[in-house]
Amino acid sequence: MSAPTGMDALLRPRSIALIGASRDPESMSGTLLSNLAESFDGRLYPVNPNASQIGSLTCYPSIDKLPESVDLAFIAVPSRFVLDVARRCIDADVGAIVVITAGFGETDDAGRQRAVELQKLASDAGIPFVGPNCLGLLSTATESAFNGTFSATQPQAGNVAVCTQSGALGFVFPECNRRWNIGISKLVSLGNKLCLGENDILTALNDDPQTDVVQLYLESFQDPREFRQVASRLSQAKPIVGLKAGRTASGKRAASSHTAALATPARAADALFQQSGVITATSLEELFDVTALLATQPLPRGRRIAVLSNAGGPGVLCADAVEAAGLELPEFSTDLQNRLREFLPAEATVRNPIDLIGSTSPDEFRRCLEEILAADETDAVIVIYVPRLAATSEDIAAALVDVAQHTESSQTLLSVFMQLDPAPSLLGHASPQIPAWTYPESAVAALAAAVELTEWRQRRARLSFESQAELDTQQLREVFDQAVARDNASDNGWLPSDATSALLRAAGIPVVPETIAHTGAEAVFAAEQIDYPVVAKAIAPGLVHRTEAGAVVVDLQDEAHLKAAAMRLFEDVPGCNSLHIQKFIDCDREMLVGVSREPGFGHLIAFGPGGTQVEALGQTAFRMHPLSIVDAEELVEQPLAKALLGRFRGRELGDRQAVVDLLLRISQLLTTCPEIAELDLNPVKVLEEGHGVCVVDARVRIVPDNARPAVQQETLP
Amino acid sequence: MSAPTGMDALLRPRSIALIGASRDPESMSGTLLSNLAESFDGRLYPVNPNASQIGSLTCYPSIDKLPESVDLAFIAVPSRFVLDVARRCIDADVGAIVVITAGFGETDDAGRQRAVELQKLASDAGIPFVGPNCLGLLSTATESAFNGTFSATQPQAGNVAVCTQSGALGFVFPECNRRWNIGISKLVSLGNKLCLGENDILTALNDDPQTDVVQLYLESFQDPREFRQVASRLSQAKPIVGLKAGRTASGKRAASSHTAALATPARAADALFQQSGVITATSLEELFDVTALLATQPLPRGRRIAVLSNAGGPGVLCADAVEAAGLELPEFSTDLQNRLREFLPAEATVRNPIDLIGSTSPDEFRRCLEEILAADETDAVIVIYVPRLAATSEDIAAALVDVAQHTESSQTLLSVFMQLDPAPSLLGHASPQIPAWTYPESAVAALAAAVELTEWRQRRARLSFESQAELDTQQLREVFDQAVARDNASDNGWLPSDATSALLRAAGIPVVPETIAHTGAEAVFAAEQIDYPVVAKAIAPGLVHRTEAGAVVVDLQDEAHLKAAAMRLFEDVPGCNSLHIQKFIDCDREMLVGVSREPGFGHLIAFGPGGTQVEALGQTAFRMHPLSIVDAEELVEQPLAKALLGRFRGRELGDRQAVVDLLLRISQLLTTCPEIAELDLNPVKVLEEGHGVCVVDARVRIVPDNARPAVQQETLP
Repeated sequence: MSAPTGMDALLRPRSIALIGASRDPESMSGTLLSNLAESFDGRLYPVNPNASQIGSLTCYPSIDKLPESVDLAFIAVPSRFVLDVARRCIDADVGAIVVITAGFGETDDAGRQRAVELQKLASDAGIPFVGPNCLGLLSTATESAFNGTFSATQPQAGNVAVCTQSGALGFVFPECNRRWNIGISKLVSLGNKLCLGENDILTALNDDPQTDVVQLYLESFQDPREFRQVASRLSQAKPIVGLKAGRTASGKRAASSHTAALATPARAADALFQQSGVITATSLEELFDVTALLATQPLPRGRRIAVLSNAGGPGVLCADAVEAAGLELPEFSTDLQNRLREFLPAEATVRNPIDLIGSTSPDEFRRCLEEILAADETDAVIVIYVPRLAATSEDIAAALVDVAQHTESSQTLLSVFMQLDPAPSLLGHASPQIPAWTYPESAVAALAAAVELTEWRQRRARLSFESQAELDTQQLREVFDQAVARDNASDNGWLPSDATSALLRAAGIPVVPETIAHTGAEAVFAAEQIDYPVVAKAIAPGLVHRTEAGAVVVDLQDEAHLKAAAMRLFEDVPGCNSLHIQKFIDCDREMLVGVSREPGFGHLIAFGPGGTQVEALGQTAFRMHPLSIVDAEELVEQPLAKALLGRFRGRELGDRQAVVDLLLRISQLLTTCPEIAELDLNPVKVLEEGHGVCVVDARVRIVPDNARPAVQQETLP
Repeated sequence: MSAPTGMDALLRPRSIALIGASRDPESMSGTLLSNLAESFDGRLYPVNPNASQIGSLTCYPSIDKLPESVDLAFIAVPSRFVLDVARRCIDADVGAIVVITAGFGETDDAGRQRAVELQKLASDAGIPFVGPNCLGLLSTATESAFNGTFSATQPQAGNVAVCTQSGALGFVFPECNRRWNIGISKLVSLGNKLCLGENDILTALNDDPQTDVVQLYLESFQDPREFRQVASRLSQAKPIVGLKAGRTASGKRAASSHTAALATPARAADALFQQSGVITATSLEELFDVTALLATQPLPRGRRIAVLSNAGGPGVLCADAVEAAGLELPEFSTDLQNRLREFLPAEATVRNPIDLIGSTSPDEFRRCLEEILAADETDAVIVIYVPRLAATSEDIAAALVDVAQHTESSQTLLSVFMQLDPAPSLLGHASPQIPAWTYPESAVAALAAAVELTEWRQRRARLSFESQAELDTQQLREVFDQAVARDNASDNGWLPSDATSALLRAAGIPVVPETIAHTGAEAVFAAEQIDYPVVAKAIAPGLVHRTEAGAVVVDLQDEAHLKAAAMRLFEDVPGCNSLHIQKFIDCDREMLVGVSREPGFGHLIAFGPGGTQVEALGQTAFRMHPLSIVDAEELVEQPLAKALLGRFRGRELGDRQAVVDLLLRISQLLTTCPEIAELDLNPVKVLEEGHGVCVVDARVRIVPDNARPAVQQETLP
């Protein structure tokens, strides 16, 4: 059998060296060595020039003195020696390297210099390289188990892989999963991500048979665009539960377009997770709650929930949480209600939630659950138990496990034991395990997150990634090149209005035409060509948000009013020497479509209510470019956007399909013209169904993207 | 010493009878009896005609055979005997009654009939009466301890009072508080609230020296208006942490005003809690989290938070949560940073959050905390510990307790121990206790809720309850009476437009005048009196939301356009035979002020963004009438309203003060004219600061309030 190569050398090594192995068992590298010694069945070589033996292991003076080229080398020497040791490892032909040592990019200038050299060394060598500044990595796979971390706690084997940019959370994740008797398949502490990052690990986990669910903690993205590909693929087979830290908005530049002002790093990360099928946890607790469900039970088929409890109050709280999460609590069929009535006391309610009375026996719980599963009217069942006189929690747990093991059902089963003591351990040791929470709201939150993934997978399976908009991209690019050639960067990259309109039209986007007028008379002439009512907008250097500056007069109904408005604009707006005259569109359904290019992240496309109060509303949603149809439809389905486009208070439906088409065309425009750095279409007037959309005001800014690939933020230790 | 009377008989009895005492120690009343026997130092009388002795206690055949009139009688006989037994108790002159037995209003018609009779009996007797259908009540006060519940778990004594409408949660509350070693002062299970309800219990807790914090679980309000008085008073001395269940919006009637459509029971409950200083928990877990903080630590003085951790990732997550909760994480002064630098390793960061490196010693934690407390630059400190090699959680806990006990500081101290095992028990046994959570986000949520109470108290102390608006209420009432007398209820209670305007003007609210025109010529004449531009609105029977019906044309700039618009309205709007002509106000800052009278709840006053998209925006905030200045200012400070009234995108500030004045006048209008059932002022145009507001469209509906006091929803068992 040949030696493992590539990621196999890192994740399934048959020989391991630890360079910097300490004789002190309490130290970091001493703990790492004893973890390896206890967990690893392959050949283990401690390296330390000052020792010939550590415990029962033969110690070697340097990596080149080992009897073989090892698959995996851990480096735990002081930071000033790391470069030299890494070089020797590569010379000795090791298969993969993990640098535990801290003291690189996260510290001072010298550290950052060492980081640059280490990165070059690793990338030249072309072997998997993890760290520096990390907790290490481990695998519990039967054939290739090893614990290459310096955590003092031995992780339990299981089906959850952990990929974390925080070493400290590498301690926390295995520990907290144990509450549900959930174990770890692999744990990778990414450290400073000089070389390998989350994208490489997520790719490798596709083929890892031990892993069913992935827990992901990130503080930065290795490469957002690649992440989207990698995570989308993995999410279709294995749920990823992600937590992105560093959400504070501080440091966001003052932006000159609405969209750029709204596109914070947190919104970019949310969009990326959302589009990749990653379940976004809003807290550590939620991350564990969701994992507990996904690692033990089948993904729910849909959003219909049954609630079975022995206590009214908790049942009502659970129902409240179900409704607040947008899940459904369907009333049971008469048939099912009648069957429940047959054996339940009169005081019990059976419509859903089922409220058994306090003196319920385990057998009543058992029969209720059997009936609910057999009727198959819901997608998931939440069983809530408050310890009372009639039965112990252990009795109830035994009944649940018994039903689950003897009933054919694809419904997802959750339990809540409202007690201070841990839930009965039987639940965590059954097959399938039944996850238990202390409070109903936590169970519902986990379920709601899981349903989101179900629906993401359904949408993705239903629709192709291809855009439906047909576009002559070659012609579009020509129009763009002409616009850029003409524009002499006078206005900080903002295109003149006519070039903007031409570009949008070339992308098949309807723009209400504007005519330039230099005098009141020219304005009247222009208005006569298009018919009243018209809009007059002032043109002035540096004038960005015209409506807010009082430089737009709408609904001018005749010559007299147009002339008066023109005079006022020429007089009142500083620097105004010409006007745009445009047909007035009488439609108050105004939306915003926008683009902002975020450093290292690529383009974000925005959609939400339009007008001047965009920032105040805070209801703009984002997706990463390129948009799939699914992405575009999700944008249109955001709650407020959906309401505004819908049929409320007597208005006809807005043309949703035209909005989706517009969003896809914007995405194609960006593919063809990636130099677009900012774009605001605001307002976009959405007409009645079948009548399309039209852009009333548009601004486009061109800035060639010379940025290097994302500068990776150093990990926090 | 005379026998206790009134609530003292209920909460501090010196003699107790249990009628329906069972000889079966496993039964409900058997457990209740043994709980009383074990906990109560006074005279205890089991009553059961079939026993002469239960355990070591003499048993009596009936209540009238006891050697004295007892202070408190528990009734636990089958429901069909309860009425008779209660009557005998009253005849025997007992001081207070608790009915444990279920089977009343929550069941069938016979049960509801029994409930009516029981309520009359209890109310005629004029003694405290709790239940029926409840867990009982208990007190742990040293002088008057008794456990009158049938819970098998003995509660720990402490400073938290529990008042719960769910008996099942009466089991859960004491249990879950124990996680923080927090005990119970009093627990009252309200049951069906036939007689006593939360208002009576909250009133009694004002003077209970053992109680520092109150946990409140409600499914309905006994009397919302009285609740506001009672809870506001108690909140100023003792925090109330409340959870209101049954939030589902189902059953909300189709409403004809925007405001009534938006005023759901959940929004009413939120408004009531908010105005009463009750901390609104959004889940059971949050209720316990917040209580843990309030029961152990001083209320934070303000929102400046320090974070001290031994792990970067959790520190960042905590900082994210602090920012998301609207709390502040101020950078420490250079002075403090320098002092920290003196003893911390170079890798540590000291700006706030403080990120100690993994190998931190307990002593470094201790010194950091000492410095932070001594510098007094923040209002609360969150200490986060991830168990690592360097120290045990117990070591760190000991260091924290030591600092807390030896440092003079009024800062609030919280801890997070990120481990599966319970946090070190030392923390819960120290004085003061230091509450510990597993995840940083939970600690932050508790802190944020506590800060809300701090600020509520500050606002309340700063401002009087009196309105500043001066109003001739007698004249106002005369105008109202005239309007009602004239209106012959033709339009379902909606006042005609001129009566509406007259009423609002009498309340000192500026309304843009409308003139009625029956022809195009009359419209032009009317416009000439007020000058162009004008607005034309169709008048037609049953026409409710005119803008949405296309029955309003704004910004008509001259005679020709007005005539055209008038002709169109007469032709297009069904039933239109006259118009309102009104001056057009060129101001796009449009808000909604509204009123909805909710059954049993009184008037809710609404404020939020105006226009036709009010429901879609979902951003309307509510407060209960009457409004204090604090309430009115809070409405104006809601995030979206604040943004819209503020100086964004170049617009001048809106006249906030005029909005507050308008809201207070609406409240005074309701006091004077409580027959107002619905009111929509939409839009209210808010002009620039100093220029006031004006109401452009107003609708008022009069329905005399013949409703009985709130029908109390039966409690769930």
